[in-house]
Amino acid sequence: MVQEKVTDRDNAIFEAGIKLGALYHQFTGSPVNLNTVSSLEQAIQKSISVQPYVEEISVKIDRDMLKSKLNDEFGYSELQGPMLKVKITVRYGPSRIKVGMEYDPELNYPLMKILEIEEIHV
Amino acid sequence: MVQEKVTDRDNAIFEAGIKLGALYHQFTGSPVNLNTVSSLEQAIQKSISVQPYVEEISVKIDRDMLKSKLNDEFGYSELQGPMLKVKITVRYGPSRIKVGMEYDPELNYPLMKILEIEEIHV
Amino acid sequence: MVQEKVTDRDNAIFEAGIKLGALYHQFTGSPVNLNTVSSLEQAIQKSISVQPYVEEISVKIDRDMLKSKLNDEFGYSELQGPMLKVKITVRYGPSRIKVGMEYDPELNYPLMKILEIEEIHV
Amino acid sequence: MVQEKVTDRDNAIFEAGIKLGALYHQFTGSPVNLNTVSSLEQAIQKSISVQPYVEEISVKIDRDMLKSKLNDEFGYSELQGPMLKVKITVRYGPSRIKVGMEYDPELNYPLMKILEIEEIHV
Repeated sequence: MVQEKVTDRDNAIFEAGIKLGALYHQFTGSPVNLNTVSSLEQAIQKSISVQPYVEEISVKIDRDMLKSKLNDEFGYSELQGPMLKVKITVRYGPSRIKVGMEYDPELNYPLMKILEIEEIHV
Repeated sequence: MVQEKVTDRDNAIFEAGIKLGALYHQFTGSPVNLNTVSSLEQAIQKSISVQPYVEEISVKIDRDMLKSKLNDEFGYSELQGPMLKVKITVRYGPSRIKVGMEYDPELNYPLMKILEIEEIHV
Repeated sequence: MVQEKVTDRDNAIFEAGIKLGALYHQFTGSPVNLNTVSSLEQAIQKSISVQPYVEEISVKIDRDMLKSKLNDEFGYSELQGPMLKVKITVRYGPSRIKVGMEYDPELNYPLMKILEIEEIHV
Repeated sequence: MVQEKVTDRDNAIFEAGIKLGALYHQFTGSPVNLNTVSSLEQAIQKSISVQPYVEEISVKIDRDMLKSKLNDEFGYSELQGPMLKVKITVRYGPSRIKVGMEYDPELNYPLMKILEIEEIHV
């Protein structure tokens, strides 16, 4: 067993994970329909963007999936994890990390992944 | 003990309570600052408006309270119950109910109240 | 249009609605599997029981539905509204209200309902 | 700018961040008092433990802080971020990461941190 030092890269990745976990558990469950979906997307995007180290964020809610989940009687659904497609770029010192969440149909799971790791040499 | 029949008025009031409880526990905790507060207000308003029997809703987040809660280091806060000022009108059959939530400084509590009960005779 | 006075019965029903809305939006989304489901049930029950005017509460999470929703790869699910079966009794002055939430398969919706209204004459 | 490969260590740290973000935004806001606090601690602990790659987790809610936040009129509070003291160990392949969240009084912020990074050589 070797004890390692925490680097900027580690912190950048850690912060990126925090943001995805936060976004998911804060906003899933929100009532939504096709008329209100853009307003919810934007609010989620802006809300998470105020957290530390976030450089960029895009949040998309899948309209087709939402449409298929609208309740016949009441005409709305709740925001569910698999509807979300999110990309977040976090910067910590010289480390820039891009992470994403997207529904994986094979796993039937809203999978979160590290997409890119960049070290910026000034 | 007397067992009573459930009226439209009862259902209207019940539905109004549900909306306030839902709004509060869905959206408090959302990261927010002065630049993103309008977008969050609107998204909350629209989100809850899609639920059954909602006729009207207004959601205000107190800017002064928010400002006073912004973290010095990171420049944002979380949406907290006392920041919310909400009015919701629910209609169930001939019954129209207006309810509100507003911080009560004496109780130090975000108090939810029935504001008006109207029976509409057509 | 007739403006009505707010009664204890109204307040009891309003409070009962608040509790169901709160419970739903606070706890759906919680990660859960068959080993942890009782602990979650109890925590939800106790959590909501501390809110004002709650006299009794029972929270059941449907094991069969949960089992059918466990992710094949990761072995857990999230608490979803339709898994919940809740009964809450609220007391406000002489008014005792029993409300419930239960999945309605016809509506495909976790329906909240007023179950009983009692006026206690001392 | 140099594009880097994603390692097991990166994934372990990412997963650890996700868990802390999820825990925080799922459970803060839960009604709680001194009689129900252990049940909530345990449910949070168990809930997050079912998520992928979690090896160990401990969740403590600060009783003194909770006590000081109990509402005078209603005798309960909501679970707030600063009340939480959490440690989570995540294992991804040979990488074991220990992260924590704890209120930092100087920053007035519930700070999440990477505490240890171990590479296990078999």
